[in-house]
Amino acid sequence: MLQDAAVLIDGETIAWVGPRRDAPKVGAQHAAPLQVVEITGVLFPGFIDCHTHAVFGAPRLDDQERRALGVDYKAIAAAGGGILQSVRDVRARSETELAALTRSRLATLLACGATTIEVKSGYGLELEAELKQLRVIRRLAGELPATLIPTFLGAHEVPPEYRGKRAEYVRLLCEEMIPAVAREGLAQCCDVFCEPGVFSATESRQILTAAARHGLAVKLHADELEGSGGAELAAELGALSADHLAAISDEGIRALAGSSTVAVLLPATMIFLGRRSQAPARRLIEAGAAVALATDFNPGTSPTLSLPLVMALGVSQLGLRHAEAVTAVTVNAAAALGLAANRGQIAPGCVGDLVVAAVDDWREVAYWMGTDVVSAVWTAGSACPA
Amino acid sequence: MLQDAAVLIDGETIAWVGPRRDAPKVGAQHAAPLQVVEITGVLFPGFIDCHTHAVFGAPRLDDQERRALGVDYKAIAAAGGGILQSVRDVRARSETELAALTRSRLATLLACGATTIEVKSGYGLELEAELKQLRVIRRLAGELPATLIPTFLGAHEVPPEYRGKRAEYVRLLCEEMIPAVAREGLAQCCDVFCEPGVFSATESRQILTAAARHGLAVKLHADELEGSGGAELAAELGALSADHLAAISDEGIRALAGSSTVAVLLPATMIFLGRRSQAPARRLIEAGAAVALATDFNPGTSPTLSLPLVMALGVSQLGLRHAEAVTAVTVNAAAALGLAANRGQIAPGCVGDLVVAAVDDWREVAYWMGTDVVSAVWTAGSACPA
Repeated sequence: MLQDAAVLIDGETIAWVGPRRDAPKVGAQHAAPLQVVEITGVLFPGFIDCHTHAVFGAPRLDDQERRALGVDYKAIAAAGGGILQSVRDVRARSETELAALTRSRLATLLACGATTIEVKSGYGLELEAELKQLRVIRRLAGELPATLIPTFLGAHEVPPEYRGKRAEYVRLLCEEMIPAVAREGLAQCCDVFCEPGVFSATESRQILTAAARHGLAVKLHADELEGSGGAELAAELGALSADHLAAISDEGIRALAGSSTVAVLLPATMIFLGRRSQAPARRLIEAGAAVALATDFNPGTSPTLSLPLVMALGVSQLGLRHAEAVTAVTVNAAAALGLAANRGQIAPGCVGDLVVAAVDDWREVAYWMGTDVVSAVWTAGSACPA
Repeated sequence: MLQDAAVLIDGETIAWVGPRRDAPKVGAQHAAPLQVVEITGVLFPGFIDCHTHAVFGAPRLDDQERRALGVDYKAIAAAGGGILQSVRDVRARSETELAALTRSRLATLLACGATTIEVKSGYGLELEAELKQLRVIRRLAGELPATLIPTFLGAHEVPPEYRGKRAEYVRLLCEEMIPAVAREGLAQCCDVFCEPGVFSATESRQILTAAARHGLAVKLHADELEGSGGAELAAELGALSADHLAAISDEGIRALAGSSTVAVLLPATMIFLGRRSQAPARRLIEAGAAVALATDFNPGTSPTLSLPLVMALGVSQLGLRHAEAVTAVTVNAAAALGLAANRGQIAPGCVGDLVVAAVDDWREVAYWMGTDVVSAVWTAGSACPA
């Protein structure tokens, strides 16, 4: 924590940071004229939301109420809800329509401080609809000042056409969809929902091995509601992250602690699901695992666009210290996306992504619940419109 | 739910509401010229936050982190935290300073849709400091466009000077503080924190009976973390509300169901406390009790200023239907403040307090977590500055 600090940004990159009185004189070697911006509040590295499903159609309001009244997820799916509702919705919409819907959501995430945002596909579950989602992400990456990291999640669920022939869908993923996504350069990562009833550890290994062969980094939805060895598999595969983890086993904790795989925790999801449990964040940290936080923004189980709210839940629900909550949406979230080299810190050589919180004490960024504390955002050295 | 509706406001009061095509012609009998405002989105009655402790000094950030690390409330108090930290803080600040801090918080509550806000004292715990808090509320009631309902909560805790002589403090409350507050007309309600270790049911009865004698309506913090017959006492005394209720007994539920006392539930508090339980909202509703929701905004256990977030928690954590969540911050919250006659509804004769949510489906007001869905607010017929 620096008081009365200065940050020098050269083009898109942080050139220097330190006490204001020590700031280097900027000379004529710089083409652009020096622009001085005075800031009141606390300056953070741009926040990184390393897990979202932001490309979708309508909110799943019926699911929320059914769950409130005690209907379980199988009955919700049988009533036409659940992930497959969003799949039908995304398949039916045009790329332009999805882009318009997603644009305003990502703009809100950015306004709340997320300068880098991972966005997954996974509501298509057929080649063209998955490519459509990924093209929405590519289009918005060119339009919005945030950095978007696209992840292929064709293995979000077995689509209805492949019920009873799941091996065929896994084959389709490995032999057609992943190669097509990689060929078009539409994704940087591949993710699988590894959970009993969705994809088994064996299937997940098969899919992610194919993804790695095609040059995609790998991630896993692991041990969300039931343990299934997902965390262990993530460590085994050298995944960037294992996400959710509310039902992680002791062995899973040891596996993550002994690996470079980041544990991405999603406390807002458990709250929105009305669950009474959360991932064992302190045990993960004490074992030596790196813990990140993310919104899990999606229409069925986490309609939240605020990383500061997630940070507050990180402290109050997961037992993180304030400093751990900040690390969890900066340095560790960067690592969960393979971006640790130049994101997540205010340090020379890092991208000039910065967030100002209008607070007196830096810890307030993980304290106010549901109030917008972010007053200004810069990405790649430029101020974002308010 | 009306589609394509119109609302006619005459002065500060709603004169008519119905389908736009049926709107009455406004003739020359009205002094003020007719002003037409077109609205896109969903129009709600102004939300009512019926339980806040908004007059305080600093956030209690240390408490939040200590609790995250597993320190219990007694150890937090022993370390200088808890309610008494806010008491020392409020006693040390001037009325002007407290007014400035409180003003911006209430402005945020209002911007999030709370047009009527109950505000409690209770961080003074001595006559002058309690009066100072109540004067802050009176001052801000004159400055802000929201309606503020002041509640005397001198019985929030036994102050340090009276440890070991609590009967004397109860006597002071009944014989000096309540009469002084009533004499100055500084409060409409009196509240007591009835909980094992704070005030017993017997002490609470004594205090609230004195309050009623001085013309104050009565409310109770009841059965928050341990049951103590608080709900039953609230019903017995004809209290406007019994608040918290996470530990209410079956008998307490029956008592509230058979009374006009509103059950005020505060789900954000349980989340911020890291608790794994919530008040039995469905059982209360099914028994026939009226359920309201509030922020419980305070620096130690609920730093939230957003009733929409609380509504979303009401659905997801308490199991309310969307419509019940809306009722809980409108009609039922009005009843919890004794204002049911002309607040909490868009109906002729009601105060012209209105909120616009920028959503497609009205249920979204209790869905998005931590995103500001309120796009415009009117109080007493006038638009609030954005």
